[in-house]
Amino acid sequence: MNQDDLLLADTNDVLSTLRDLFYLPPNTVYLDGNSLGPLLKRVESRLQKTIREEWGQNLIASWNSHNWIDLPVKVAEKIAPLVGAAKGQVICADSVSVNLFKLLVTALQLNPKRTRVLSVEETFPTDLYMAQGLQKLLGEARCTLSRVKEASLIEEINDETNLIMISHVNFRSGYVNDLKVITETAHRHGAMVLVDLSHSAGVIPIELDALGVDFAVGCGYKFLNGGPGAPAFLYVNQRHQNKVEQPLSGWMGHRSPFEFSADYIPRPGIAQYQSGTPGIIGLSALDEAMTLWEDIDIKDVRRKSTALTTLFIDKVQNAAELSDLEIVSPLDVETRGSQVSLSHPDGYEIVQAMIASGVICDYREPEVLRFGIAPLYNSFEDIIRAVDLMKDIVKNKRYRDPAFGDRNDVT
Amino acid sequence: MNQDDLLLADTNDVLSTLRDLFYLPPNTVYLDGNSLGPLLKRVESRLQKTIREEWGQNLIASWNSHNWIDLPVKVAEKIAPLVGAAKGQVICADSVSVNLFKLLVTALQLNPKRTRVLSVEETFPTDLYMAQGLQKLLGEARCTLSRVKEASLIEEINDETNLIMISHVNFRSGYVNDLKVITETAHRHGAMVLVDLSHSAGVIPIELDALGVDFAVGCGYKFLNGGPGAPAFLYVNQRHQNKVEQPLSGWMGHRSPFEFSADYIPRPGIAQYQSGTPGIIGLSALDEAMTLWEDIDIKDVRRKSTALTTLFIDKVQNAAELSDLEIVSPLDVETRGSQVSLSHPDGYEIVQAMIASGVICDYREPEVLRFGIAPLYNSFEDIIRAVDLMKDIVKNKRYRDPAFGDRNDVT
Repeated sequence: MNQDDLLLADTNDVLSTLRDLFYLPPNTVYLDGNSLGPLLKRVESRLQKTIREEWGQNLIASWNSHNWIDLPVKVAEKIAPLVGAAKGQVICADSVSVNLFKLLVTALQLNPKRTRVLSVEETFPTDLYMAQGLQKLLGEARCTLSRVKEASLIEEINDETNLIMISHVNFRSGYVNDLKVITETAHRHGAMVLVDLSHSAGVIPIELDALGVDFAVGCGYKFLNGGPGAPAFLYVNQRHQNKVEQPLSGWMGHRSPFEFSADYIPRPGIAQYQSGTPGIIGLSALDEAMTLWEDIDIKDVRRKSTALTTLFIDKVQNAAELSDLEIVSPLDVETRGSQVSLSHPDGYEIVQAMIASGVICDYREPEVLRFGIAPLYNSFEDIIRAVDLMKDIVKNKRYRDPAFGDRNDVT
Repeated sequence: MNQDDLLLADTNDVLSTLRDLFYLPPNTVYLDGNSLGPLLKRVESRLQKTIREEWGQNLIASWNSHNWIDLPVKVAEKIAPLVGAAKGQVICADSVSVNLFKLLVTALQLNPKRTRVLSVEETFPTDLYMAQGLQKLLGEARCTLSRVKEASLIEEINDETNLIMISHVNFRSGYVNDLKVITETAHRHGAMVLVDLSHSAGVIPIELDALGVDFAVGCGYKFLNGGPGAPAFLYVNQRHQNKVEQPLSGWMGHRSPFEFSADYIPRPGIAQYQSGTPGIIGLSALDEAMTLWEDIDIKDVRRKSTALTTLFIDKVQNAAELSDLEIVSPLDVETRGSQVSLSHPDGYEIVQAMIASGVICDYREPEVLRFGIAPLYNSFEDIIRAVDLMKDIVKNKRYRDPAFGDRNDVT
């Protein structure tokens, strides 16, 4: 793409006006929205109101007058269309990790004769860790985690499998797992599917209801731009609701929390998946960030995302200076999420040099340089700047500065 | 106390200058700090910085440059002196409910031969609900919740008891359970103690280490003024650390979360009690709110608290108009927390009328009018205004307005 084509691409971008809605640091290309989405200007204003007016002035009354009590559902109903969920199946609560625990137990309780949870080695580690913790708690007679290679997942699904737990998008490579094939295969074997949407919600159209996916979790602080450590969400397909009780049965999931009765009775529907008192400031940020989607078609987002990742990969493939970098992300656009991952033995140092020169990306063990693509604010020009900088850094070995040697990078 | 004495009391109050550090709505007496503490001015400023500078400008780099990654420990170390804990035993994470689950499992794993969790009917319901959820998950062969009357707790502790789970302060009556006697009795029977400090942290001196208490949880949004749904904290006595793994084994409790290895290895010490990614905005608010305590002696807080609750009760006892109200809180100042609870069949309506006239208190089933006393900002004058208003409302039956009839009040 030459300079004129580039300008044309950004001019023709139906999403290009959204960039001004965000605070983005000057002279910086931010390609880490898959770790932490940036601050929307409207979110800053909303939080000022939440803090000063709602908490500061109205205090305890805000649970009713500003409807804090309904925020977990209200925010979730804004997320639901993005993941293809009809009303009443999504709720915001806790963290992805804690929500995974609730859903793993739900699945095991729905079909206690099957104890096998099948996942893949390459999935985001906290998903595996939560299943490991549950296995230790319940014992292998009730829960056994099987980890297989991502590539052999389908053939490993069998009639002993209770649940397939899988990331929609592989956080390291950006590979998009085929939810349709996985769900069909799982259901054919009488198994259920729990999908982690952390790296896909907000960048890839998702059809949980249409595919018949059983359970899902997702993250509020990546492509949904809800702020650092934003509340997570979870999805329970309607057909699995009200049959078993989720184990973290805190008062916010009680049918009548303000009766203060001594016996737990779950609220009907998805609301029982709440546990303790929700963090209102974090929920307010996510609520406001989600209002952006009223005017956005996720298909436009996906279209721009694939154009940007394709441009990125084309530029890398055509740069002699970058021939030592392996392209980790799928070359097939259909199975590529909204990121480009490369690998290089000096990946960590190259990433640090990129950051020091104003292109924010991140590093993932082992040897992976990760570039998150967020079509709501990333431009075609961002991609050109990133690859051009990388060419300069690698060609001149600028990353060999000892300043780039300290590996304490954080998601 | 006459008007001169009252002015003298407020003048002599060593904490009186603190009130100006808070935003308090004008012409309002706020006696609901035991449900939601008010906004400190410094917290508003800090959050502006967290939102605009840390999230908005420094973005992902803030995990290191603004030390977000250490906030759960940093905030906890500010809470630790308030609960009598030496370093390395307190961490901020999740909600009280979710933290209870981690500690209930920890206790059962430390002594699996004993399966009995002993609690009292009057404790805050979420504590009971979480134990009920765990009992259902593990089965009664591994966990059995026994609920007894608060008054008979001590005699119910036996050699089958694994854990006593108790609120330090009864949320409804304000009764202070004797942690010394409970802990000594429990330990004599080989049982452990888990105490919920939600209604005592920040108003009553607590000596977890000195008493040898085993576990504790507490709330950030009441007397610690951390904001609506602020992160909770938990305490694990040093002697119980590193022996078992807590069950909600998310990546933030992993020894090396950024190695992204597929096997969970807990971080040594209290840090393993983290699960998912923490909510940074909420943690920042609590962190800033806790800086207030650098200059405050909790003994001064307790002294003022008892003076205020004593004044409140004296005024009620001496008011002929209020003779129909029963005093639910202990008359003995030693066993009275930082609240005054009264009861009346029309309690709900009286509370609504009080709120409508600018004295914010709350109602708890059954029939309890609850007045939280927060010595950091409540004055002696506040107490006089509250009781005088109540006298007027009850005497003239002003609460018989149908506008005060809708019971959807929220903590």
